Amino acid sequence: MDLNQLKKQLRDFAEQRDWQGFHAPKNLVMAMNVEVAELMEHFQWLTEEQSEKLDAKTFDEVQYEVADVFIYLVRLADRLGVDLDAVVEEKIKRNAAKYPVDKCQGSAAKYTEYE
Amino acid sequence: MDLNQLKKQLRDFAEQRDWQGFHAPKNLVMAMNVEVAELMEHFQWLTEEQSEKLDAKTFDEVQYEVADVFIYLVRLADRLGVDLDAVVEEKIKRNAAKYPVDKCQGSAAKYTEYE
Amino acid sequence: MDLNQLKKQLRDFAEQRDWQGFHAPKNLVMAMNVEVAELMEHFQWLTEEQSEKLDAKTFDEVQYEVADVFIYLVRLADRLGVDLDAVVEEKIKRNAAKYPVDKCQGSAAKYTEYE
Amino acid sequence: MDLNQLKKQLRDFAEQRDWQGFHAPKNLVMAMNVEVAELMEHFQWLTEEQSEKLDAKTFDEVQYEVADVFIYLVRLADRLGVDLDAVVEEKIKRNAAKYPVDKCQGSAAKYTEYE
Repeated sequence: MDLNQLKKQLRDFAEQRDWQGFHAPKNLVMAMNVEVAELMEHFQWLTEEQSEKLDAKTFDEVQYEVADVFIYLVRLADRLGVDLDAVVEEKIKRNAAKYPVDKCQGSAAKYTEYE
Repeated sequence: MDLNQLKKQLRDFAEQRDWQGFHAPKNLVMAMNVEVAELMEHFQWLTEEQSEKLDAKTFDEVQYEVADVFIYLVRLADRLGVDLDAVVEEKIKRNAAKYPVDKCQGSAAKYTEYE
Repeated sequence: MDLNQLKKQLRDFAEQRDWQGFHAPKNLVMAMNVEVAELMEHFQWLTEEQSEKLDAKTFDEVQYEVADVFIYLVRLADRLGVDLDAVVEEKIKRNAAKYPVDKCQGSAAKYTEYE
Repeated sequence: MDLNQLKKQLRDFAEQRDWQGFHAPKNLVMAMNVEVAELMEHFQWLTEEQSEKLDAKTFDEVQYEVADVFIYLVRLADRLGVDLDAVVEEKIKRNAAKYPVDKCQGSAAKYTEYE
């Protein structure tokens, strides 16, 4: 996926509809949060095990909720001027330093401790 | 960005730390939602105008919160088996059909109506 | 608890600090959502069983997060002019009609179906 | 409003439907968060000013979303064993100490600083 191309595509989409005024970063964050909640609603009464193997209908709905979150996130990054490739790469490096393999072996306690 | 490579990188990261047990889709959705809220916290007392031009310190924090959401979203897509490229492309097509340019010109009312 | 007295107390608290400007309903909803996420963060890596019996330290933190959500919710209701006693009573009636006892016996499927 | 009576009423409602299994605190927090997002959705494209004066239809929907959040919060407090009256009173005291009137006069900067 070419994120810069996607950013441009979503920007054009909004501009063609004169939606720039609605798309202040504050509003986009809210809208993204709402989409995440719509995604989460599918999981709230499932056990963790059930969440691993969704039925076909739920999976289909879930995958488009995932897409909605992705689209808002890329749109938001564009409006904020965030370089997604760069910050994701940097953040993964920071996480690797923060959670050293030998100190984080499968322990919820340590996982939380290191978070 | 190569999303499939990123998926694999995040999967390796979790497996090396034995975190698969924590990373049930249900839990990952919750964790992603928490990251979105941490991002949103930066915007809650700002006006929409202020959210357009963050100061340098806030921008730096915001961009890594954006990265956190992105990382959890890609990790979740991997655990669910969602093909991000495909669903995002399909969802953009559906949005274009749902929000025709000539019917959605800059009107909050119509924007909402069509959502 | 006297909710009207609590509303007044929180209103005075905000007015004494000149926070009315920040406390637009839009902003209060965001702030409440952030508090809910802080509460949720305590639960994201716990199993459902673990979430039933929190350790003392977690319980103490959790109860004050619950209080934060409650306070924002009452403050929001005041700013919106929502009569909490009346809408809660009415909503419970509606739920009773929506989820008849004999059709909702312990089935996640039916629970979801009726939601 | 008598919160203890409401707790009991909601507990009876859940038990009559055999929903205790679904109502692990982890799940209730998720469900409450979803309700907060449904509430937030009404505000995401409004300006702060617009959020002060909702039209009648939006207000009616909003007030029942507020009720949904309230109901889940009281249900969650009951499942966790949180004494709402006590923690809300204590939290307000703590907030008064944390945000002294003379240091928090209407400044977003100071507001954030003290948060």
